[in-house]
Parts: sequence; C-alpha cells; structure tokens
Amino acid sequence: MNGAQSLIRTLVDAGVDVCFSNPGTSEMHFVAALDSVPEMRGVLGLFEGVVTGAADGYARIADKPAATLLHLGPGLGNGLANLHNARRANTPIVNVIGDHATYHKQYDAPLESDIEGIASSLKGWVRRSEHTQDVGADAAAAVAASQDSPGQVATLILPADVSWGEGGQTCAPVPPRIPQAVDSTTVKTIADVLTSGEPVALLFGGKACREAGLRAASRIATATGAKVFAETFPSRIERGEGVPTIDRLGYLAEQVTYQLDGIKHVIIAGTKSPVSFFAYPGKPSDLVPEGAKVHVLAEVGQDIVKALIDVAELVAADTEPVLQEAARPALPTGTLTPQNWVEVIGALLPEGAIIADEANTSGLLLPAATAGAPRHDVLTLTGGAIGYGIPVATGAAVAAPDRPVLNLQSDGSALYTISGLWTQARENLNVTTVLLNNRAYAILRLELQRVGADASGPKANELLDLSGPDMDFVKIAEGMGVPATRATTAEELAEQLARAFAEPGPHLIEAMVPPLF
Amino acid sequence: MNGAQSLIRTLVDAGVDVCFSNPGTSEMHFVAALDSVPEMRGVLGLFEGVVTGAADGYARIADKPAATLLHLGPGLGNGLANLHNARRANTPIVNVIGDHATYHKQYDAPLESDIEGIASSLKGWVRRSEHTQDVGADAAAAVAASQDSPGQVATLILPADVSWGEGGQTCAPVPPRIPQAVDSTTVKTIADVLTSGEPVALLFGGKACREAGLRAASRIATATGAKVFAETFPSRIERGEGVPTIDRLGYLAEQVTYQLDGIKHVIIAGTKSPVSFFAYPGKPSDLVPEGAKVHVLAEVGQDIVKALIDVAELVAADTEPVLQEAARPALPTGTLTPQNWVEVIGALLPEGAIIADEANTSGLLLPAATAGAPRHDVLTLTGGAIGYGIPVATGAAVAAPDRPVLNLQSDGSALYTISGLWTQARENLNVTTVLLNNRAYAILRLELQRVGADASGPKANELLDLSGPDMDFVKIAEGMGVPATRATTAEELAEQLARAFAEPGPHLIEAMVPPLF
Repeated sequence: MNGAQSLIRTLVDAGVDVCFSNPGTSEMHFVAALDSVPEMRGVLGLFEGVVTGAADGYARIADKPAATLLHLGPGLGNGLANLHNARRANTPIVNVIGDHATYHKQYDAPLESDIEGIASSLKGWVRRSEHTQDVGADAAAAVAASQDSPGQVATLILPADVSWGEGGQTCAPVPPRIPQAVDSTTVKTIADVLTSGEPVALLFGGKACREAGLRAASRIATATGAKVFAETFPSRIERGEGVPTIDRLGYLAEQVTYQLDGIKHVIIAGTKSPVSFFAYPGKPSDLVPEGAKVHVLAEVGQDIVKALIDVAELVAADTEPVLQEAARPALPTGTLTPQNWVEVIGALLPEGAIIADEANTSGLLLPAATAGAPRHDVLTLTGGAIGYGIPVATGAAVAAPDRPVLNLQSDGSALYTISGLWTQARENLNVTTVLLNNRAYAILRLELQRVGADASGPKANELLDLSGPDMDFVKIAEGMGVPATRATTAEELAEQLARAFAEPGPHLIEAMVPPLF
Repeated sequence: MNGAQSLIRTLVDAGVDVCFSNPGTSEMHFVAALDSVPEMRGVLGLFEGVVTGAADGYARIADKPAATLLHLGPGLGNGLANLHNARRANTPIVNVIGDHATYHKQYDAPLESDIEGIASSLKGWVRRSEHTQDVGADAAAAVAASQDSPGQVATLILPADVSWGEGGQTCAPVPPRIPQAVDSTTVKTIADVLTSGEPVALLFGGKACREAGLRAASRIATATGAKVFAETFPSRIERGEGVPTIDRLGYLAEQVTYQLDGIKHVIIAGTKSPVSFFAYPGKPSDLVPEGAKVHVLAEVGQDIVKALIDVAELVAADTEPVLQEAARPALPTGTLTPQNWVEVIGALLPEGAIIADEANTSGLLLPAATAGAPRHDVLTLTGGAIGYGIPVATGAAVAAPDRPVLNLQSDGSALYTISGLWTQARENLNVTTVLLNNRAYAILRLELQRVGADASGPKANELLDLSGPDMDFVKIAEGMGVPATRATTAEELAEQLARAFAEPGPHLIEAMVPPLF
C-alpha cells in the first residue's frame, strides 16, 4: 500500500468519501489510488475555487467533511477565497494539497511555493506528512481536527514521494473534540438578564440556526419579550413552514442600528458581537447600542443549541415556539423587478429545497417572500468572498442528491467560479441556477455612496458596470453543458423554474432583473 | 488630496498609468480617485486572476509595471496563481490591496484576513501604508521596489481610512536599483571555459532572451562550438526572421538529458541550474550531466545581456550571429492534427505579433513551425500555474495596442481565467485566441504514466477527461462578448485566423485538435 492509498482508505474509514479534485502532476499517485478504494468518489472541478466551495457546500448539508485535492501553492491560492468563506462558516474540510517530493524542494523548481505560509492564513489546522508510514495517522488527525467544534479547515500537505512511497498504513478514525457544554451558572445568569425587565436582544449563530435552536430562541422570545436574531450570514439556516421564522441581523449597519434600537442587553450565543461588515467614514464599527451591555451565553465552539434549550427551560418552560404557517405569495405577472422575482421563488419553492444564496442586492426582498414556503435550508455567503454560490450549490447537491438545490446567483459574483456549472453537468446534479443579471456590481454602486466617495466620475462608474459588452449567461451555461433559458417576465421565470424543478439535472435561468439601486 | 488620490498621482508620475482592477467596498475611494487623475487608466477584470495575469502580460511587453487593485485577502488569494507566475517571470508589478480601516481590524469582521501572510508567500516586497501622509512615499517605494533588478511583485496594502483620509502627499519617483555588472574576472573565467576545448553548454534567461542577448549567444555558439539554450520558460523571448533562433531547454527531463548529453561544463547566465519541473520516482531532479561542472556567469539580478556581450567580445570578436532567415510552412490541408495546426500559425503569423503561449501539450511542435515567421515575441508560462494565457494576452494587448496578440490556449487551462475574454471585449483588444480543444487534461495523462502510477483505472482517467459534457468554447466566448468560430480542418483554421487578424478587436477560434498523447 502506498501513501496515497493509505490516505484515501483512512479518509473513507473516517466517513470522508467524497473528494472534490483539481489535480496536477504531483497528485497523480493520489488520482491513481482512487481506483483502489471504491468507496471514495472523486469529483472534478476545473478551477480550485469550485473545488473548495463545493467542499464547503457539501459539509454544510452532509454535516461531515469532504476532502479536496489541490496542486501546490497556486492551487491553494485559487481555492483560498472559498476556504475563507468556509472558515467563516466553521465548515469542516479536509484540504489535501500535493507538494513536490521532499528531496525535490531544494531545487526551487518553478512550482515551488510557500504552501504553509498561504495555508496558515486560514487560522485552521496545518500539517505536512513527512513519511509514508505516517500518512494514515496524519489523515485521521486531519479528519478529527476538521470536526473539532465548531469545525475548521484542516490542511494536509502531501509531498509526492510520501504519496508514492510504499509502506502506507491506514489509521482508525480519531474522535474529534465535542463541543463544550455551557455551565449552569452562565445559563442562570443569562436567564436573569432575560427576565430583568430591561430590553434584551439575543443573537445566535452556528448550529443554533437549525430547528432545535430556532425553537428554543422562539420560546425565549415569546416568554420574555426579548428580540431574537440569527447572525447576519449563517452557514445554514432552516426556514419555512413548521419552523420558527427568526430574522437575521441586517447586512447594512443602518439596519442593525434599527433592529437593536433601545436594547440595553445584548446576549451572544455562538456568534460574534455585532460589527459593521465594512468601516464607513464617521460611522461606528461596533454596532452594540451605546450603553448596552454584552453578555456571552456560549462561545462559537461550545454547545450552543443545548445552551439555548437550557435557557428556554428556565425562562420559557411552559411556552411553545411560534411555528411558521404555510403561506406563499401569489404568482406575479409582468416584467421582472427586484420585488416580483422573489415572489416567483416563494410561490414555487419545492419541499426540502436547499437555497445557495448569492443574490446579494437582488435578494434583499427574498426572506419575506419565502418565509412561509415549504421547509427548506438557506446557505449564505459567510465570509464575504464572492464567487461562492455556484460551487456551494454544487457541493450541496452532491451531499443531498434527493433534494432540489436552488442557487440564487448574482451576475458579478458568478464569473469568479463559473466553471462550476460544468461540474454540475458532469455529475448530473439537481441544481437550478437563477442567474440574476443586472449588468452591474450593484452592491458597489451602493457602497460607493455609503463610504462617502465622490461617485460622480465616469471612470469610477465604469469600473462598477458589467454592461459593454453585456454577458449572455444562456450561452455561457450552454457552453459548459448546462441547459439554459432566459426570463424577462415573471410569467417566463415561473414557467422556466417549474420546468427546471421538474426535470432532473442542472438548469440555468438567466433572469433579467434590473438593479435595486 | 486624500490618500487614494496621492497614491494614483504618485503612480502616474512614476510612469505607472494602467491599473487592472477588481475592487470591493474597501477600495471605493481608490475607484473614485481615478476620476481625479486623468492619466490613469482603470481596466476592469471580473476575477482577480485576470487582473494579476494582465498586469504580468502588460509589464512583459511594456517593460514597466502596471498596478493592480485587489480586495483584501480573498482577492489576493484569487490573484495569487498568476502572481506566482509573475514572480517566476521576475515581472515588476505594483500590487495594491485594499484592507479594512485601521480601527476596524480589531473587530474581526467577515472579510478580515491575513493579507501579509498570503503576500509574503510571493517572496517580494510588502508594505502596509499606515498613515495617509505616507501613502505617496509608499507608492513611490513600491514602484521602485517592483523594478529592482530583475523585477518583482511589490505589494502595497492600503487600509480604507488611510485611503479616504485627507492630507495625502504625492512623492517624486524613486530610482530602482539597476542591475549589477558582472566583473571582468568572471567574464574572463567563463571565456576560458568556453575555449577549453571541452564540451560546453551555455544556458541563459531573463532579458538575455531579447535580441541583444540572443545575438551574443549566437556569436558565442558559432565561434566556440558551445551548445546554447534559452531557459525552458522565458518571460519573453524574441524569435523569427532576423533574430538568432536558439532552442529552449526542454520541459521533460528526458529532453534536457538529450540536449545536455556529453556536456562537461554548464555555464549559467541569469537563470537557474537545470532541474526537473517535477520529481519522478527513480529519476534525478538535478539535470546537470553527471561529472559536469557548473559555472555561473551572471546571477538572475545581474546585467546578463552585457555579460554575454562581454564574453562574446573575448571569444567571438570577429564572429557574426547566425540570423534566422524567412521561412514559413506551406498552408496545410485536412482535419486538424497536432502537426498541421502549428503550420497554419507559422504560415500566417503577422509581423510584430505577440504570442501568449499556453498551448501546453498541443504546442510541442510550435517552435519549429514559427522559427522563420516574421519577427515576434513569445511569452511563456514561467511558473507552471495554469490559467495564465488569457489574462497575459489581455495585458500584452493593453501594453501594445498596435501589435497583434495571439493567445494559443489549451482548453483545460482556459477555464481558470475564462472571464478575461470579457475584458478583451470591453477594451476592444486585438487578441486572437486559438482555443485548442482536445477535451482532456492531456498533460496529466502523460504525467500519470511518467510518474509510474497505475494509469489503468477508470476513476483516475475520468479525473483527466474534460469530455462529458463537451465544452463549447464558441458559446462561452460569445457569451462574454467575443466573436467566435470553430475550426475542424486546417483550411478552416487558416481562413478564420486570417479574418481574425484582419479585423480589429478580440476573436476566439475553437480549434478541434486531438490530443498528442
């Protein structure tokens, strides 16, 4: 057994049986070894940002890591933006990076690169396998590290000769560190804050955005009158009929200021104290209302769900959560607008859908339109590195082949990782992409004004304009093997969306929605 | 004057008047400031790998740096692969990266990232502007550092508040360090080696791959009988009628072993001692023939051209260089093959063309077919990070609007930075892309065998196969605004190529050339 075979066998034994891959020469023995471990599925991406984003989407849905296969420092560089998003989502990923043979590194060959330097920017777990006989143990450690609560990117660097060498040994799975429980004193303290009679906001994140956490938060809100909010960009949040609908904190500082107006106590559970996404001249970065006190119920790595339930048992023992009732918008008509396209989504969203949401400005009105749709999951852009939607939708569809995946995708962001469409076609994944073509970096038009820059110049505006030439996403998608259509009216969008959901395999609908701003 | 304005004004005063840009919110004041400095041209890329690759291509042709504009760590990550290639090409680039405001970093907002950690992997120059009044001086220092011989990536990190703050001061240009001359003792020593009567190979790189260096190398070869080779992947090499034709060292170790067979002395001038691109089991990484002695005429940063001329004056004072005579292949006919498509290129290459060569395996027969074409420049993949061709062609065309740019582009590599086609269309650049569609990572099929891996498994082969679905690059290009056609015969390729060269603006020709292997 060579090193690569011991690596893949160990991964499979630990439950990691999908490897999103973009290999090069130094990974050829890993690629060959895939045929010796039938349980491991290799999924090819044509760009590393597709590979890492797919691994992120996969784990958010599967609740276990996928592996990646990347080619030295440049491959890691190309994958870094979506690994940044994964880091901010606390997604477990086993990030395998091939390197030159150990004895070859001294020659500074053209692809020699500082893999550790780049990987360490992710603030996760990094190890280099130095000997073939250790690869199995290193792999088991990587899987465990990736799942250490709350989850992280675990990078394993695999030199080519360590991979091709004989003497590989598989290693039994290593249990990850489980989340630490919140102590009863803290729970009691928080319960006292909630029942103090002063205005309280409870902000929660991570796994608490799933049903159990949402139910506890809803009970707390109902019993105490506290405002409760999910974090701005959850890794995965459950929504729809039968689940409590809880608003997320806004992206814009102005929204958060409104949401937290008058609050005297901010309780944090498994997320961060609210801060502005960017800094703006003359505006505060810290969004905790002046004079309010911040209390921490649970750190990000702790058992947030149990902590919320424990608090609910103290302050809301007899209170039921408020569950969302079924409610869909009527199917709208007319030329597409930022308002009516979300109503089409709300009207037609299938049961059990997974939404990979990179609609950005085009999607500001989406939450209200989908609140009463059948139960679904929403994945969000946790780290702000655009180009996440197509890859994450791809990975989510690999994780849940029986669920419809809907990627709501803005045009500017789509171009970063557009080749993910090809992977969807190759793997025949049930992903429907609604490509929101407003022909602009619309969010930057807004931000140009918000930062107080002089927004009047033609050169500045040209850099935020995606027309000239207009992109034709129908052709781009078809060129990558994904059937595509264009919708300019709500009726067309509804008809095309219904058809896409009804047919297996990927589809893209280019929705000509004008900019909101 | 704010910091951004002082930055752009200082760049322009130092001769840096093109900024390839993919901005985000933290760069909005830089974007707005473009309108206050009319001499600066902003060129939008829809992905950072396009931006950094274009800056590389621009400087290889303009012999001066362009600036980039990137968005925090994820933007730098997306640009890293082509910055790696630029580093290996010793290309001067002023790499401007926006960051959060200084006071905002403490909050660890979603896009907070380790920019210095990632940038330092490039082994270039890195500085963070801490105060608005220092931005001009920092920019002048960055321009100088980028041009310090032999050239490097100079990264300037610009926090948002340093950019928007008032009190910016422009700074006069700072002279870069000029290349150090090789001393006469070394020149004499090398001349003695060349005239020793023993078999000698002279390997040179960098600026010596331009006409003056090639002429000196040709004189040395003619007078002494030494074998002379340009480095495997030059940043830019001049070729064609009237210039000495000098072979490059091969990519495959087997080729280099053949080229250096029997050599007793290897002289190195402005390049590295020959090493294998990758390691292969049981094969040497160091390609210097056993028992041969290595002599260094010039280090990479020294004045290589003058050193070669000085040596030529000692050993070949009365010898003229052998200049390439005009010679074009006849226009071939029939279904496209790895042989006949390069003959079409050789037959039709226009005077003064710039070839951005990422043909990879499809282009192995290209050098012979184009040796006697009209004079042209060839840019090569210096660092092995694929996805360089489309962006580098884009930047080269911005640098030389009066020269035809020909991008020979393999299919697998094209997908990494495909949106560069859109930038070509927006800027109406004279780039003709010949997209070599062999529907495979053909080089990896070869490498799978060369590394001695078991290449028989279906899963391994599937990961190197780009069919299923077949990509349609005509549609993809048209979707990005570039007129495109498909050629399956040599006649079609010739007709389409002639038309593309005759019309202004970008064109793409999808050439259905089967794999060489």
